[in-house]
Amino acid sequence: MAADKPLLIYSTDIAPEWIDYNGHLRDAYYGLVLSYASDALMDHLGLDEAYRKATSTTLYTLEQHQHFLHEVMKSDHLEVRVRLLAADAKRMHVAFDFYTDRYPDPVSIGEVMLLHVKQGATPGAVPFPEAIARAIAALLSASAPWPAPGPASRPLELRKR
Amino acid sequence: MAADKPLLIYSTDIAPEWIDYNGHLRDAYYGLVLSYASDALMDHLGLDEAYRKATSTTLYTLEQHQHFLHEVMKSDHLEVRVRLLAADAKRMHVAFDFYTDRYPDPVSIGEVMLLHVKQGATPGAVPFPEAIARAIAALLSASAPWPAPGPASRPLELRKR
Repeated sequence: MAADKPLLIYSTDIAPEWIDYNGHLRDAYYGLVLSYASDALMDHLGLDEAYRKATSTTLYTLEQHQHFLHEVMKSDHLEVRVRLLAADAKRMHVAFDFYTDRYPDPVSIGEVMLLHVKQGATPGAVPFPEAIARAIAALLSASAPWPAPGPASRPLELRKR
Repeated sequence: MAADKPLLIYSTDIAPEWIDYNGHLRDAYYGLVLSYASDALMDHLGLDEAYRKATSTTLYTLEQHQHFLHEVMKSDHLEVRVRLLAADAKRMHVAFDFYTDRYPDPVSIGEVMLLHVKQGATPGAVPFPEAIARAIAALLSASAPWPAPGPASRPLELRKR
C-alpha cells in the first residue's frame, strides 16, 4: 500500500503554557512534542510499556538536533511524521517532521539518535529482539522513499548569510 | 579577573514532573533548562524584558543540538555554564554545559544558534545595538580560553561503535 506521506506518528494541540514571551511556541516545547512523538514511535515498534516492564529495557536519547523553520502559534495544531533514517542492532537514527495547516513545508524538523538500553545498576546497550528488529526494518523500508522536506542534521556554525 | 570556569548563567533543581518513565530527566526538559539558561543569557547581555518591550526585538532560536552524556536524577541540581562560540552582527552561536555534583564532566552539552529579530507583521533579522554588541564581544573574549568539555555539534549519523 503506497502512502502519500511519511507515517503520521503523533499530533497535538499547543498547550497555553508552551507559549513564550515572544507569543509563539517556546523552543523547548518542540523538544517535548518530539519526545512524545518518540514515545508513540516506541509503541508503534513494540517497545511499549508492557515490553519495557517485562524486559527492563528502554530507549535512551543520545543526541538531538532541531531546526526551527517557522513560528508556531497557540492556535496551531501540530502533526508529526516520522522517517527512520538508519538503524543497526542497537540504535535508530530518526527524523521527525513537524507540520501545521499554515505552511506546506515543515515548521520544524528534529532528528534523534536512540539507543536500546537495559537498565539496572550499570545500564548497558543491548540488541533489539527479533520482533522489534523486524518492525524497525519495515519502518526503514517504508521511510526510504521520502526525501528530507527541509534541512538535515549538520554541525552548527556561523555561515555567511 | 581570571575565573576558573565558564560563566555560571543558570541553575535549577529538577521538577518532579520532568522525570520520565525511565526514572530520569526526560530528554525534552534538558531543552527547557537550556531555554531558561538562554533567557538568563539574554538578561546578562541586556536583551532583557525592558529591552524587548521597548524595541519589539528578541532572539529567535534557529537550531539546537543537545548531547545527552549522563543520566540526570530527580535529586540532582543542574548548573549551566555558558560559552559564546561565535557571533556576528545579528547572530550568536552559544554552548551551554550542564553539570551536576555527581560527575566532574558535563551531563549534557547543548548548542544553539540565536538570531536577533524585530517582531511585527513580517519579523526580520536586525543588528544588535552597540551596547549589546559590546556585551557580546566581552562574553566572546571571556569564553575564548575555555575548551569544549565534551563533544561539540556535529551531524547525526550511525557511526561504527
